[in-house]
Order: sequence, then structure tokens, then C-alpha cells
Amino acid sequence: MSNNQQIDLGSGFACPIPKSDYANILLAHGSGGRLTHQLIEKMFLPAFKNELLEPLHDGAVFTIGGKKLAFSTDSYVVNPIFFPGGNIGELAVNGTVNDIAMCGARPLYLSAAFIIEEGLPMDDLWKIVLSMQEAAKKAGVLLVTGDTKVVDRGKGDKIFINTSGVGLVDDGVDIGPRKIQAGDKIIVNGDIALHGIAIMSVREGLEFETVIKSDTAPLTGLVNDMLKVSGEIHALRDPTRGGVATTLNELAEQSGLGIIINEEAMPIPDDVKGACEILGLDPLYIANEGKLVAFVSPRAADRVLDAMRKHPLGERSVVIGEAVDRHHGTVVMNSKIGGTRVVDMLTGEQLPRIC
Amino acid sequence: MSNNQQIDLGSGFACPIPKSDYANILLAHGSGGRLTHQLIEKMFLPAFKNELLEPLHDGAVFTIGGKKLAFSTDSYVVNPIFFPGGNIGELAVNGTVNDIAMCGARPLYLSAAFIIEEGLPMDDLWKIVLSMQEAAKKAGVLLVTGDTKVVDRGKGDKIFINTSGVGLVDDGVDIGPRKIQAGDKIIVNGDIALHGIAIMSVREGLEFETVIKSDTAPLTGLVNDMLKVSGEIHALRDPTRGGVATTLNELAEQSGLGIIINEEAMPIPDDVKGACEILGLDPLYIANEGKLVAFVSPRAADRVLDAMRKHPLGERSVVIGEAVDRHHGTVVMNSKIGGTRVVDMLTGEQLPRIC
Repeated sequence: MSNNQQIDLGSGFACPIPKSDYANILLAHGSGGRLTHQLIEKMFLPAFKNELLEPLHDGAVFTIGGKKLAFSTDSYVVNPIFFPGGNIGELAVNGTVNDIAMCGARPLYLSAAFIIEEGLPMDDLWKIVLSMQEAAKKAGVLLVTGDTKVVDRGKGDKIFINTSGVGLVDDGVDIGPRKIQAGDKIIVNGDIALHGIAIMSVREGLEFETVIKSDTAPLTGLVNDMLKVSGEIHALRDPTRGGVATTLNELAEQSGLGIIINEEAMPIPDDVKGACEILGLDPLYIANEGKLVAFVSPRAADRVLDAMRKHPLGERSVVIGEAVDRHHGTVVMNSKIGGTRVVDMLTGEQLPRIC
Repeated sequence: MSNNQQIDLGSGFACPIPKSDYANILLAHGSGGRLTHQLIEKMFLPAFKNELLEPLHDGAVFTIGGKKLAFSTDSYVVNPIFFPGGNIGELAVNGTVNDIAMCGARPLYLSAAFIIEEGLPMDDLWKIVLSMQEAAKKAGVLLVTGDTKVVDRGKGDKIFINTSGVGLVDDGVDIGPRKIQAGDKIIVNGDIALHGIAIMSVREGLEFETVIKSDTAPLTGLVNDMLKVSGEIHALRDPTRGGVATTLNELAEQSGLGIIINEEAMPIPDDVKGACEILGLDPLYIANEGKLVAFVSPRAADRVLDAMRKHPLGERSVVIGEAVDRHHGTVVMNSKIGGTRVVDMLTGEQLPRIC
């Protein structure tokens, strides 16, 4: 560990984001899309620069006592706090569990820190706490440390929860965007856009024939089954804020390769398609909370796909595209009608406070 | 690790805090005092019950790969976000660094998660980020992973920051409230109540002859020097929310012993005393952010005190009392005028959003 490295703050003490661009924080800075990236790349990375801090990775991986550990944090500000398929509590547990799993690690220990607005019904807090306990049990992690703060009425919004977690990367597992190779198959473990649409349906008061439920779930078991059958899983990422499109853009950028996806292969249920049409949203940009995209060597893709389909959270796993050695850093989609289009990163704030 | 243990939720799914007591969260539930304890003991502990989760400890300690690690989390909601002697950013770094140091561990890695209110000036964020970088450097930790969320205007308050951290407990170090023994000397590393008074002065618009500054500082170096000279440091705790009085009450309860402190020995600067009189506050209940109380074997107390006084953050270290084998679970103060009084835990919310 080198703590005495030179830290280059670029333009000295002047804010690195020109005032003429953005003098104030906008909702879009929290979207997970382009403005979030700008904030991270221009402000956080130069300030905190070190070898472990990587842009937009789901967690940091470091070695202590010969063991490779993964460490990750996320704050949850979802609105509403109760929604079809879950609540902010289990979302907070599953979210961090998944971020650690995406490092190829087994999550072991979580922290939970609550920022509660004065006036939150005690019963609501209890429901949230119970569902966190249940989620932790399902994911096989222990909640071992915590914190509670209360802010005055009107200075928060019911409850915000931060979870951080520590996991163990098993010997021999080495996963990351830089390991992606041209030819890698891209697999997703089932229907996309469920979480975001579940939240938006409640907010907009939309009713569909069936209730669209959040897919919030811990992906630890699924990842474990995948790693068991193949050492050729190159990258894993959970397409949360910003959806599959933003996640793939990040991975294209970080791997330096191009990505091609096939519209026809994209698993989107009809009711989600319908909701997206009503709301004017593109399902590729909508948050998921129980999904992963995996980049797998073509040699191993069938084996991994088979293993995934045997797991309850992977029954509808499917190959949606592949990494290619052209249009580097860019995601291109083959559309159903035979054309192609560039799929960009999320710009602006499509869905504020989705997680 | 046992994840399949039986979890006893007591009264089933009914909220364990009777509605007749508190149907809603109050500011006092975040005070660090009696209501915070009730929330932890009646709600969080029964729900998350496991062998590592301890009430009111500063962090969890567990073993991975033969190494003992400490893991801690805290969210910071201090108002105002800039105050004499510091800002919310360095407070967030120092606070978690200190929680880990209080486990007898060397902090190594931190996470930082921001919940920003729409409209925060970008320049303010930059100042905060720079001061976090500076604080991390001073404390010898790396900020390795992070998260940014933005909430709509009026649903947050400028910025809340969560930091979590991982530290390494060196071989042979074993510190905790259960190790406290009757006869242990209680040492504090200097003037108390500075942080709380610095914040309150700004909020109340008070001006004193000299500006009272927050004592926010990383205690890693000091703790390191203390551990070097003695293996008989039994417990360490930073008296933040709820102040020295609340911290000592926690330790009396957890050790099962009694505590006696001497009013005359308590290091309180005159300007702080004056401010406390004006504000009607008791300095024993006021938050510190660069202080620790240490319980040290009487045999080792002088040696530890000497080492502390040689460190810039311990020049004014002093023995303020001792652990005793009577009035178990209770803190008693010998007053200047020769009497004694029970010093209870903080009840109600003396200073909301102090950290």
C-alpha cells in the first residue's frame, strides 16, 4: 500500500467541473449515466487517485494476509420505500451483496447505516429491518455493524440506507473489465427492466393487468454456480442505475473493445414493453436489481449458460450479444428490422431515485 | 461463520417498540443517547442477531485468512456542513478512521458514499472532496470505492456522507469493553466538548473572544503509539455523539463494572465552559471528534500517559477516573465541592445533527 504517492489535483484547488457547465448538482448527477461519470472522472478520481480506486467498478479488490477481499458501498434513496416486489431494506442488502458478487467474491459481512427522517412510523422501520434480516439470511451474509442518524422533518425523505460489504475472492478467481476479450459472449440471466418499471408504476399510479414486480434478489448463488463450471468468466456487472445500455457502455469503454447486442435476443416481458411505451422509456436504460451481464469466453458460453439455467434466478438466461474488435468503446445494436444503431450511455436523468 | 443459526425475533412480526411509547421516529432516536440505545437493543439487535454484532461497539471484528479485521460504518449528517475547524468531508473520514482505531486496528481502506441534495454548489462539493483526500492522506488510509446519489431539492439537506472502513488488528492486540478490569485508569487525550460547541456556536450565531474549533482529527497515530508501549490497554472508545458521559455509561454497562470520574480532572477549556453556560449544556454530554477514552491497567497507566503526551494529539492527556468493582453499570462523578453524583446517559436530543 502506498499512501505517500503524489496526488496530482490537476488545476490545483479550482473545481475541476467548469461552472459554466454545471454550477450546481443536478438530479442527473445521480442518474448513473453521463453526468455521474463526469463527476466521478473529473472530481472523485483525480482527488482520491490510487491504484485500487477504479472508475465505475462495483467494488475495490485488495489483498490482506494473502486473501483477496472485495469491498463495496452503496446508499439507497429509492422512492417510494415500499414497492411491488420489495422495499428499500432488502434492496439495500441485495444491492451491495450483488456488487460484491460482481467482483467474483463471496459476500461475508455487511454494514447498515440508516439516515431516518424524523416522523418515520416505527412500524415502517420494523418492516424494513425485518426484510433486511431476511435478505441477509437468503444471501448468506451477516449484518455485523451499523449506525443510525435522524434528521429533522423536511431534511430527508423517510429513510435512506447505506450498506457496505466485505467479501472473499476465492483463489484463482480473477474477474474484471480488462479481462474481456473479443469474441466473448454476453449473457444476461433473464428479463430486464423489471425493477425500474415496478418503481415507476407506483409513482405514476399506473395499473397493468398483472403487477410488475421488482426483480431485487441476491445473485451470490447464481454467480457461485457460474464460477464452479468455468474459469473463463471474464467480467460480471449488475445493470442497475442506467440499465443494460449504460452498463455495456461502461464495459466497452473499460475493456477498450466494441460491443454488439441483438435487439431480438433481449429478454423483455410484454407487460414491461407496454409500460415502457406508455411511459416513453427505453427498457435498455431501466434499472435492474436481480440481473447480471456476464462476459464469457465463447468456448465456455454454453456450459455457463446451462449452469445458469439450472438456477432459479437464471432460468431465462440468454446470450444477448458479444464483444468485438471494432467500433472500440461503442455499443451497437442489431435491430429487429435488420438495421444497426449506436446505443449510447444514459444522458440526463431518466428515472430519479430508482435505487 | 454460521449463517443458519436460529433467529429469534421475540414477539414475531410485531414491532418490538410499543406504539404507546414511540409510534414515530424522533430526533432523539439519533442522539446517541437513551433512545438510540433502545432502538438498537429492541429492534436492530434482535433482528440481526449474530455473534459479531455487538451493541454500541464502534465496529465489528472478524477473522479472514488468519487475519483479524475491523469493519465499521458511519453516516454523517452534520449541520452546517462547513464549521470552524473542519467540514463534513474530513469529519466523515476521521470519524470512521477513529471507529476502526478504537477496535485496536490500523485503518487501511475506506469507502465514501454521498447523498447529495439537488442544487448543492459544485464548488462546495469540491471543497469537501479535497478535504476528504487530505484527511485520508493524514490518516494513512486509501479511499477505494464510492457511490453518489442525488435526491430532489427539499428531500435531503445539502449533503450526507457515509464512510465505511476496513482495518487490520495486529497480532496480539485484543481490545474491548469486556476486557476492562476494576482498577483500570481512564485516560482522555485532551480537552473535551470542542466539536459540539464549535457546531452549536455557528448554529446559534454565538461569538466568543476566540473561535472554538472542532477537534476533528484521525487518532490512528496516537493509538499506534499507545499500543506500542503497552499490551495492557483494555478498551478504547471515541466519545462522539452523547459525549464522554454517554460513552462511559456504555462502557460501564458493557463491562459490568462501575466508573468513577473526577470533575476537577476533566479537561475543559474556559471558553468552552463559558459557551456551555450560555447554551445551557453540560460539556460531559457534548460530542468530540478527535478524542478517545482509554481504559488502561494501573501498572501501565503512567507509561501510556507518557507516550500519549509525546504525540501532538495527546499533549494534554490526563487521567479522569477509574473503573471500580461497585455501583455496577453506573458512572459516578466526584464533584469539585466534595460531593458525588450519578452521571447518566444522555436522555432526549441535546444536540441534533452534531455529526
